[in-house]
Amino acid sequence: MNAEIITIGDEILIGQVVDTNSAFLATELNKLGITVVQISSVPDTKEGIKDALDAAKSRAGLILITGGLGPTSDDITKPALVEYFKTCLVENPGVVEKIRSILASRGVKMTERNRKMAELPADCEILNNSAGSAQGMWFVKDGQQFISLPGVPFEMKAIYFEEIEHRLKERFSLPNIHHITILTHGMPESMMANLIQEWEESLPAGIRLAYLPSPGILRLRLTGKSTGPREELIMQMELEKGKLEDIIGKYIFGYGGDSLEQLIGKLLNEKKMTLALAESCTGGTLSSMITSVAGASAYYRGGIVSYDNEIKTSELNVSPYTLMINGAVSQAVVEQMAEGVRIRYKSDFAVATSGIAGPDGGSPEKPVGTTWIAVASKKRIVSSLHNFNDERGRNIQKAAITALFMLWNEVKDCL
Amino acid sequence: MNAEIITIGDEILIGQVVDTNSAFLATELNKLGITVVQISSVPDTKEGIKDALDAAKSRAGLILITGGLGPTSDDITKPALVEYFKTCLVENPGVVEKIRSILASRGVKMTERNRKMAELPADCEILNNSAGSAQGMWFVKDGQQFISLPGVPFEMKAIYFEEIEHRLKERFSLPNIHHITILTHGMPESMMANLIQEWEESLPAGIRLAYLPSPGILRLRLTGKSTGPREELIMQMELEKGKLEDIIGKYIFGYGGDSLEQLIGKLLNEKKMTLALAESCTGGTLSSMITSVAGASAYYRGGIVSYDNEIKTSELNVSPYTLMINGAVSQAVVEQMAEGVRIRYKSDFAVATSGIAGPDGGSPEKPVGTTWIAVASKKRIVSSLHNFNDERGRNIQKAAITALFMLWNEVKDCL
Repeated sequence: MNAEIITIGDEILIGQVVDTNSAFLATELNKLGITVVQISSVPDTKEGIKDALDAAKSRAGLILITGGLGPTSDDITKPALVEYFKTCLVENPGVVEKIRSILASRGVKMTERNRKMAELPADCEILNNSAGSAQGMWFVKDGQQFISLPGVPFEMKAIYFEEIEHRLKERFSLPNIHHITILTHGMPESMMANLIQEWEESLPAGIRLAYLPSPGILRLRLTGKSTGPREELIMQMELEKGKLEDIIGKYIFGYGGDSLEQLIGKLLNEKKMTLALAESCTGGTLSSMITSVAGASAYYRGGIVSYDNEIKTSELNVSPYTLMINGAVSQAVVEQMAEGVRIRYKSDFAVATSGIAGPDGGSPEKPVGTTWIAVASKKRIVSSLHNFNDERGRNIQKAAITALFMLWNEVKDCL
Repeated sequence: MNAEIITIGDEILIGQVVDTNSAFLATELNKLGITVVQISSVPDTKEGIKDALDAAKSRAGLILITGGLGPTSDDITKPALVEYFKTCLVENPGVVEKIRSILASRGVKMTERNRKMAELPADCEILNNSAGSAQGMWFVKDGQQFISLPGVPFEMKAIYFEEIEHRLKERFSLPNIHHITILTHGMPESMMANLIQEWEESLPAGIRLAYLPSPGILRLRLTGKSTGPREELIMQMELEKGKLEDIIGKYIFGYGGDSLEQLIGKLLNEKKMTLALAESCTGGTLSSMITSVAGASAYYRGGIVSYDNEIKTSELNVSPYTLMINGAVSQAVVEQMAEGVRIRYKSDFAVATSGIAGPDGGSPEKPVGTTWIAVASKKRIVSSLHNFNDERGRNIQKAAITALFMLWNEVKDCL
């Protein structure tokens, strides 16, 4: 089964909003073995919507539409659908009551505008929105499926999981799809492609490889599709994965959707060891990545963001003399920061960062992007110098990812 | 002039990558007065690419394509364009040398695969990529413009700013576009729409309003388009903005692309005051938002992420007795955290957060999402209780945004 996703809204077309809904829906449909053949973002005009529906139905049997179901005048998906499917609006008493009670729980009285949200097309299946007042709608026309969802991401997701996923599984016979994602570090895309070219060219027909580079990480994704038994497909793919591991094993640091911070969390949990952080240039980003993992409180003791040099000396025990002689962005200071927070916060590991994120503060000797990173453990302190040579946000992000890799290396090898 | 953006790559269609390139290009084209009428993401197959080009050229005179220009076998944009424009590939000696020198600077020797990146279509203008080896290409056919760019965001952006923007301005006569974005807080979308309905309906023909809700913030965006003088358009829009301010002034906290953390930074700079943070449930996210602003070191002294309760008592001077009696997620503890870090880090203001981010750790009395936030200044401590009732990532994000609003309120009113 092929699907298309249409997102409606001028906010996407003028670039004010990044379309994350499509990525969510594409991921979920893919898991069910439904192939997304196109994603389109179109203006919130009736013509734009109707033209997009016509184009999509020439390519796909399932069409998902997000956006334009709100209460304001720029929300015109519902009237466009009513015209497209030649139906009319009917007030749904159940939905009126639901909206009234949602508003009441917020201490707000229902207005005419709110009540209009309960007017829904006569010829569609209504998909309950447990997270808001814009209901989902499922139309069937000439054997093709059209599903309209609100654009607010958490409402759209709630409707998908509660109302759509199980219906797709029940109503359609879907092929088996299996993905294996291999996370690698330390080998650029073009060199990796050379290294595995022979293996890639010998992949069986139903299995494809994709290269997904991101800062510091190259993901290799194998996708297999089969109408035969699922177990057979998985076995065949595991076999290919094994061959690949023989070639590039030393660059692999993980599998699947696991992030580096999740892998570090698993290792620390297994080893019953703890972590503390001392951040200067990364300013809390490293800590926010570590604490994005559920259960981080089991191994993360806490951190210090020592933005001011005074904090580095008073809280992290960095020597004022070292700071004066070497400057804050130096090996000596970053190592003292790491060891300082490790001892103070009584942790097994500690990471420290000190760099010039920019745009100001650079010098010929230490240009913007210059960053020292240290990892301290009970056994030793390792540190390294980097120049990320980028704008502020990316310098911070690259420093945080590099710091996570250094930490992962130390934790992994620690007995 | 109308434009379309086509992003190429299966990674978008299976949801593994969120398409941020389109938002960037849409924003930039819009600034030039070019209207983006559709954004499409299509598979990396020759047919997918050619069909998308055919569809796009029926709607737009300028078509931008990103992705599929890398060195690996799944990168097929270049061969597809060669077929589409009925041209051939020619090795470009200048590009060969450039690639050789980029690789040499990384200590890598050029391979055949790298060298292939210098084979470029004979019938196009080559757009220099100063950030990588995949060059941009500008084709003209039947008076329509087709521009192909690499999918790596910072390379695509470099080519846009260095090679495309000035050519678009020189080659085409573009209308005036002007945006005014008003940031509001404290009024939900549907109530706001009621409040300003009369004003909105009386807007002149060339000016449109859009509602852009995001957690805690509702942005109202006015877009004006005119072929007349730019000054006239701006004056007309400022007039409408003034009328709107008269109606909803008390909900407005800023304008334009300024984020709350930038507004707070400006206020602290003006008042020559400083900030410190004590984060528990937000785990560094609040600090990373504050330090995302260039120049934050002028007012941000630093912060403590007190993930472990022991850190709350040893570092933030929270009373062990208060902690035992009330638990970490309590008014007494969060107020002591804020005051503790304010005194220790010698700052004018301090913010503290303590909550249950989830998914574990909730109880009937304190369910997941329960969060206390406090802001301490020399004059007073204010604190409030929230239940964000969401999943971990969103609970953290909502807590951080709420904390920023509380801080902004205190800083704004402080003399």
